[in-house]
Amino acid sequence: MFNIHASNLHKHFFIAETLVICILCAVSIAFGEGIKDKYQGTADRIITATLEQDASYNRLAYLCDAFGHRMSGSESLELSIDWILDEMKSDGLENVHGEEVMVPRWIRGNESAELIHPYNKKLPMLGLGRSVGTPHEGIESEVLVVGSYDELENRRDEVEGKIVLFDVPFTTYGETVQYRYGGASAAAKHGAVASVIRSITPFSMNTPHTGGMSYDEDIIKIPHAALTLEDASLIHRIQDLGEVPVIRLFMEAHFEKDSPSRNIIAELKGTEFPDEIVVLGGHIDSWDVGQGAHDDAGGCVAAWEAVRILKKLGLRPRRTLRVVMWTNEEYGLRGGKNYRDTHKEELENHILAIESDNGVFNPRGFGFTGSKKARELVKQVTDLLKPINADTTFDNGEAADTGPLLEEGVPVMALKVDVSKYFWYHHTAADAMDKIDKEEFNRCVAALAVMSYVIADLEERLPR
Amino acid sequence: MFNIHASNLHKHFFIAETLVICILCAVSIAFGEGIKDKYQGTADRIITATLEQDASYNRLAYLCDAFGHRMSGSESLELSIDWILDEMKSDGLENVHGEEVMVPRWIRGNESAELIHPYNKKLPMLGLGRSVGTPHEGIESEVLVVGSYDELENRRDEVEGKIVLFDVPFTTYGETVQYRYGGASAAAKHGAVASVIRSITPFSMNTPHTGGMSYDEDIIKIPHAALTLEDASLIHRIQDLGEVPVIRLFMEAHFEKDSPSRNIIAELKGTEFPDEIVVLGGHIDSWDVGQGAHDDAGGCVAAWEAVRILKKLGLRPRRTLRVVMWTNEEYGLRGGKNYRDTHKEELENHILAIESDNGVFNPRGFGFTGSKKARELVKQVTDLLKPINADTTFDNGEAADTGPLLEEGVPVMALKVDVSKYFWYHHTAADAMDKIDKEEFNRCVAALAVMSYVIADLEERLPR
Repeated sequence: MFNIHASNLHKHFFIAETLVICILCAVSIAFGEGIKDKYQGTADRIITATLEQDASYNRLAYLCDAFGHRMSGSESLELSIDWILDEMKSDGLENVHGEEVMVPRWIRGNESAELIHPYNKKLPMLGLGRSVGTPHEGIESEVLVVGSYDELENRRDEVEGKIVLFDVPFTTYGETVQYRYGGASAAAKHGAVASVIRSITPFSMNTPHTGGMSYDEDIIKIPHAALTLEDASLIHRIQDLGEVPVIRLFMEAHFEKDSPSRNIIAELKGTEFPDEIVVLGGHIDSWDVGQGAHDDAGGCVAAWEAVRILKKLGLRPRRTLRVVMWTNEEYGLRGGKNYRDTHKEELENHILAIESDNGVFNPRGFGFTGSKKARELVKQVTDLLKPINADTTFDNGEAADTGPLLEEGVPVMALKVDVSKYFWYHHTAADAMDKIDKEEFNRCVAALAVMSYVIADLEERLPR
Repeated sequence: MFNIHASNLHKHFFIAETLVICILCAVSIAFGEGIKDKYQGTADRIITATLEQDASYNRLAYLCDAFGHRMSGSESLELSIDWILDEMKSDGLENVHGEEVMVPRWIRGNESAELIHPYNKKLPMLGLGRSVGTPHEGIESEVLVVGSYDELENRRDEVEGKIVLFDVPFTTYGETVQYRYGGASAAAKHGAVASVIRSITPFSMNTPHTGGMSYDEDIIKIPHAALTLEDASLIHRIQDLGEVPVIRLFMEAHFEKDSPSRNIIAELKGTEFPDEIVVLGGHIDSWDVGQGAHDDAGGCVAAWEAVRILKKLGLRPRRTLRVVMWTNEEYGLRGGKNYRDTHKEELENHILAIESDNGVFNPRGFGFTGSKKARELVKQVTDLLKPINADTTFDNGEAADTGPLLEEGVPVMALKVDVSKYFWYHHTAADAMDKIDKEEFNRCVAALAVMSYVIADLEERLPR
């Protein structure tokens, strides 16, 4: 009886105990206590170590200052890749190597634009990536200024033989950039001899912005370039005064044959599941103006430094961390596609691919594209970044170079930063080292280090 | 007795009445009730009429857009002066005329700079006004970067044969601009072959800034130019990495012989004291880059429009309002000096001279330089601008073109505006019409209209 009683008592206790544990587990999972309890100390340690040092910033400065721009197909890009590979080996990272990628080689050459009528004025400009050039003597023509594709259609009978200027005020990048991509063919369809756009930016200090463009293959290819906001709006106002402005455009732009570049790979091998891979990186190529400091030297070095600092702290996660610096993002995406093809067999074991390509301004959190179940875990990891106010989880984790991986089912993530000035500098000579704030950059490094480490170290792999 | 009593009573009443009046007067003067009571209604009317219209902004846009820059000695400056004189006559302003001023003629010519070592990079630059040029083949030399005159002195033994780069961070304009004015002679004294500066600005988007410079007559004249903040800091960091940067500088800068320009005069004659004059204006010349929209088309048109609007409202003050647009402020001040000399006989009757030459951003009030007694009155008039939050009286009313008048004892005043972005655009191609906010500009017009009208209409002339 006593025994029976005792046994019953025991059973009751057991049931109660199990219930309590279950409730605690549920609470723990619901509020992320598990990840928080397990990793907040480590996260804090990573953050403190990252914010206290200058080495990451100095490495970024060296990359920006020592080689020149990193345009696809340029010698300076390859020299900077050589240096990075050497440094990664010195850091003691593993599996450090370059993977050859044949990249297109668009050459800007000499280029210029000037206002000829109603008076003479040099027009700072940048040809747009992939544009054809002008004839050797340039193109001098009357200008038709339009404010939208709709206006172009309404005035299509006036386009023949003219240079069309798209003076389109910036709304969002995604919306306004359509004129950079498609303006040339839209104008050529109605007989334009060249097209120019207002640079894609909300703010200008006489700063032209380059960027990629494309042609409709069925339509004659005409030269396509960007003027400054100042000059585009000036020429628009001149037209509004009843004058017909005339400009002269000269561009030597052309393609030369593809040349070899490299994606960069470096790893910190996982302790338990070395074949399961968390990718983090950015694109190593830049445009041929400025230093591409925010776009995307900052993203590349932030990912690299995140892993170097983890290694230095002795924090080797269960899964492998792989830094990837893709080449030729800006006007070909050959690096992103090549990585997908080269690593096809491994993609099933790609747990997550993180890209940082929005500049290295103050980080706000991460965007994530993947399953709902994975998002719940990601949210808990992002919460660890509260100490640097980077604990917001955004909906969209897509980025250019991880796009081909997403197509293959790999969950993707993007570092999200304060982009309020990103498009001021984007694709211009102003995207230079003086625009990098060391503290903000270090917070980006810390965010990437915490996120990649914890995701790679979780007991169970991030679900698809 | 009664009479005596009555008389005494009357006397007491008289004394009491006088006291009350005196106290009221004192209160009135002390608190500006007199000016406020008399003029606030008129001020409000001026403000309302000014803020409601587009004509002032459109006139400024036309001046900026229709002619090109307004560099001293250029045809485009003289064409814009012709247009202004015609328009002023159409406005029905009085005594409209140009007063010939012979101005120096500094010609920029072609110019360029490039980094040669450790790699090749075009360096956007602007030669500094009054600089000599380089030899036809340019100057290619190693660079010594210094951060201050002190560092130059400490490293004077390294200067011989070099191009000195002054990479001096912006503190205040007055402090930092000393390197633009005096850098060439300071470097040449130790054997430099040319000198370049970091542009005088707190913020850059790859935007070089021009501006006047000067030579010490005892020291050999070497070319002097401005690089962008981006490139100056880059070259500095390259030196800090242990490299010796090399740059090539080419400048055709030279003087041609003086040519005729004009100060512009237009008046609204006073009703009671037409010989007593309140001057308001700005300088009509600009640099040869951009449109000089803030510097100083905005100041000129604001003064002009202030008087046009007063006339349109039927507000003709007791004294004469004289709009003056001085020529050649930027690198000679010939207009300001010529005005003083031409109007020497009238200067005794110059009540006040107001210049607007800090841009036409949101106005904050007026600076005043004159007697304490005059300042008390000015303060009361400035208070009328409370409706547009431009009611602060600042200590210093000095400006370049009114300087020669101040020397002759004329009280001077300067429109004070929010200058937080003024030096971003100052003397660059970014100082263009797109930087003008119509509402802010209209508030500048209103502030000048109220101030000039009330000062010119006061019962007693502003004391010296």
